[in-house]
Amino acid sequence: MGADGIEILLVEDNPDDVELTLRAFERHRLANRMHVARDGQEALDYLFGADCGAAVAGAGERRLPRVILLDLKLPKVDGLEVLRAIRSDTVLARVPVVILTSSREERDLVESYSLGVNSYIVKPIDFSKFVETVQALGFYWLLLNELPGTSGAEALGRSS
Amino acid sequence: MGADGIEILLVEDNPDDVELTLRAFERHRLANRMHVARDGQEALDYLFGADCGAAVAGAGERRLPRVILLDLKLPKVDGLEVLRAIRSDTVLARVPVVILTSSREERDLVESYSLGVNSYIVKPIDFSKFVETVQALGFYWLLLNELPGTSGAEALGRSS
Repeated sequence: MGADGIEILLVEDNPDDVELTLRAFERHRLANRMHVARDGQEALDYLFGADCGAAVAGAGERRLPRVILLDLKLPKVDGLEVLRAIRSDTVLARVPVVILTSSREERDLVESYSLGVNSYIVKPIDFSKFVETVQALGFYWLLLNELPGTSGAEALGRSS
Repeated sequence: MGADGIEILLVEDNPDDVELTLRAFERHRLANRMHVARDGQEALDYLFGADCGAAVAGAGERRLPRVILLDLKLPKVDGLEVLRAIRSDTVLARVPVVILTSSREERDLVESYSLGVNSYIVKPIDFSKFVETVQALGFYWLLLNELPGTSGAEALGRSS
């Protein structure tokens, strides 16, 4: 996990979706390992260490969560621009990015995959399905998926 | 799904792992939607439509499974070369590729992500954990993940 203990960066401007995601992760005690950015600029500031509140990462030091859950329609800087910036950075390029959006528009799907997204999930409208989906996302990207320099087991404090 | 009904391409030379994967998918009735390639060359021939048995895809016509589960240590053409060929092809580039391997070697992880793999999973040694992991893989990539031109719901024949 990152030096600040954060494993999930959620980039989401809808307060209801943030609340639901937090609840889903709370059941697995992952809520305190999640950082929320409410717009695209906040996400970039967090990842690139440009936010003033950076207690752990120095200015310009990259933060590396284990997964980034990224909405597309965001204030200030939209999701595709955030994805483009992540994939253009040699350090951040390897961080898995999952688009989590209400858009099923073909051009969003095509553009996301062209920019190198790892996965694209459409938010279920149904409350319980939303929670189930977020839980499956967390299980997959935090427990199953392996990243260079770490492992799922190590990241969750288990012995290998 | 592809024109031949195949949604999962498993590229695996170990017969025990093929058997276990088939069993895991049988529980969800996905086994008959899986094609097995026993080495890297077979995988490339299948994907690029160069195999003689191509009843549906014409020679040179790409086959597009919803996910490719790719071992690294393979006879003839190794997994990283297969991944490189997939990512170099404009049509196949968007197909999600998940490395499913027993290797946790740093250089394999780094190289896989550099080549644009979607996800990297280390095979659990324990039998039941292996089955559980393969089931989670199937659920994630067939039911949750969306691809351009299709949707998880449509791919499994559910009404949207």
